[in-house]
Amino acid sequence: MSVPATTVTPPLVDELDIVIPTIRNLDFLEQWRAFFQPYHLIIVQDGDPTKTIRVPEGFDYELYNRNDINRILGPKASCISFKDSACRCFGFLVSKKKYIFTIDDDCFVAKDPSGQEINALAQHIHNLLTPSTPFFFNTLYDPYREGADFVRGYPFSLREGVTTAISHGLWLNIPDYDAPTQLVKPLERNSRYVDAVLTIPKGTLFPMCGMNLGFHRELIGPAMYFGLMGDGQPIGRYDDMWAGWCAKVICDHLGLGVKTGLPYIWHSKASNPFVNLKKEYKGIYWQEDIIPFFQNVVLPKECTTPQKCYVELSKLVKEKLSPIDPYFEKLAGEMVIWIDAWNELNPDGTDAASVKKAEVVAPKKK
Amino acid sequence: MSVPATTVTPPLVDELDIVIPTIRNLDFLEQWRAFFQPYHLIIVQDGDPTKTIRVPEGFDYELYNRNDINRILGPKASCISFKDSACRCFGFLVSKKKYIFTIDDDCFVAKDPSGQEINALAQHIHNLLTPSTPFFFNTLYDPYREGADFVRGYPFSLREGVTTAISHGLWLNIPDYDAPTQLVKPLERNSRYVDAVLTIPKGTLFPMCGMNLGFHRELIGPAMYFGLMGDGQPIGRYDDMWAGWCAKVICDHLGLGVKTGLPYIWHSKASNPFVNLKKEYKGIYWQEDIIPFFQNVVLPKECTTPQKCYVELSKLVKEKLSPIDPYFEKLAGEMVIWIDAWNELNPDGTDAASVKKAEVVAPKKK
Repeated sequence: MSVPATTVTPPLVDELDIVIPTIRNLDFLEQWRAFFQPYHLIIVQDGDPTKTIRVPEGFDYELYNRNDINRILGPKASCISFKDSACRCFGFLVSKKKYIFTIDDDCFVAKDPSGQEINALAQHIHNLLTPSTPFFFNTLYDPYREGADFVRGYPFSLREGVTTAISHGLWLNIPDYDAPTQLVKPLERNSRYVDAVLTIPKGTLFPMCGMNLGFHRELIGPAMYFGLMGDGQPIGRYDDMWAGWCAKVICDHLGLGVKTGLPYIWHSKASNPFVNLKKEYKGIYWQEDIIPFFQNVVLPKECTTPQKCYVELSKLVKEKLSPIDPYFEKLAGEMVIWIDAWNELNPDGTDAASVKKAEVVAPKKK
Repeated sequence: MSVPATTVTPPLVDELDIVIPTIRNLDFLEQWRAFFQPYHLIIVQDGDPTKTIRVPEGFDYELYNRNDINRILGPKASCISFKDSACRCFGFLVSKKKYIFTIDDDCFVAKDPSGQEINALAQHIHNLLTPSTPFFFNTLYDPYREGADFVRGYPFSLREGVTTAISHGLWLNIPDYDAPTQLVKPLERNSRYVDAVLTIPKGTLFPMCGMNLGFHRELIGPAMYFGLMGDGQPIGRYDDMWAGWCAKVICDHLGLGVKTGLPYIWHSKASNPFVNLKKEYKGIYWQEDIIPFFQNVVLPKECTTPQKCYVELSKLVKEKLSPIDPYFEKLAGEMVIWIDAWNELNPDGTDAASVKKAEVVAPKKK
């Protein structure tokens, strides 16, 4: 299937990179061709660098394996996970674009209830280009959507909203469950299409899944570090959770918005719950202390950029989470290295505050 | 249409009252007959007591007009609004049941996307009998629903949830817009059926609409005071908003949950936007100070019942909101009178803490 000649220029085609942690499934890009082909892809190979990833004809892409990561980052490469999809954040680092969409290779095009194929990327872009409303809940969900608005009682002073930094999409078919839930409910499938996008309120944490995720790289990219997982690390499957907790507290601090809901992708296969349990069990346990930690994080006013926020957060992680396990001391160190790498590869130094001022995200005109 | 003989006993039939502020539309109860007839109705006539409200055959109801309110409450009747649907809270006061469902007489039975009539009451009961999750956001919405669960990364210690005190339902057709939005978008209709129920996180306020609302009367009833509106008052259409702000901060303080989303009702007609503007304009202005006030309310630990919380809140209203307008001093006084009336008519003294202990709300077994 090729892109029809009549296609109009897709939105943000020069301002967005698609980051894919690896591609094991040859059918993956074919399925997405109509939607992804106009965009630039960054593929970060998560395992053995001697293996070859085949990319079908017609895609514009760059591919990085472990050797490339080591070559580009030198000693700072220690911050990038090996043999784990957490390596995707290397793609966030080397991108030069304003926005990122990241997706896993077992996620395919879903259909809406009318049978129409869902252009997940277009929906993420829509979410990112319309404001968020983190300070007050709107009961008719995203007020900037066609056919919706702010309901009676919504303060008028809050109706401009704030810039959206993160768009978190969902999954039909295989839900994103932890290993214990997978084991208990092996047959559960998500068939409920909830036709909504909503802002996760300020002060509320959420479990951010990296399978189907869009974000404003300039505003929140430095907080999208997927931690240390995989080969040689004591936990796995907490890479996106870690990024989500960090990114949410930093969004709250910087006055940025986080949306969740549409778009859905079709998540084709459940990962092995026994393998997952081994990866997760420490995380499940540690998380009981990590969540209260993040719920209580207060960042100093002087932290006006995501980089400054992230370095400050790394200090708090070292101080408050190291008592749980030495892993967190190591992680805190790599958080700082990640920011060093970010600043090295992004020397213009994105200043969230200045970006916010420069960028006018107008509420939908009605 | 009469209830089929084969109908099984509906849930909570002896534990729930339906409160209707007034009934102008004779068709209203006929439309709801299949769903409402098994329940007891409390009708609170909001206007001229000499006018007669006709209730169709077969309903079990009690009807109160202004004369009844004055007779029953004596001087305390001052706390009940006159010529305004805010008078519905008198029905909450005189009910002896554990749960309340309240609905407006211009709300009819809606249909879901499959064309099935929606039993709004049954959905509210389901919402109220399953826990809420105010401390962490679940991206697949209500985890206690069939076919859903907590997603990966949701802390296990929070999966029991908390008792649900409020179930806020939505509206198809005419959305609940303020007068300015009604004026700007006179033709907007809500046709989006969002198949979701979700918990409004702790610390987040929302605009609670009284059109289609269920709540746990024993746990939060004393906070469901609809304020002073209508005849002789400077504002209208903020009755349910006021109750919602008060109830939400008290739910947050007492560790109770608030859900919003399903069920939908069919809201048949928009009220006059010019009349609404006159009622609302002071509220729209005052609200800009009221919202920050409620966002910053901290109740003392000793407030362990909704009554104690509400009296404490009345003191804060008097202290912090009276500078806006003398109306708030009056309102604060009536808030105390309302609690006096509540305690007089409910002498057993509902203790939220003890109720919570007595009541085992088990998460759905899966």
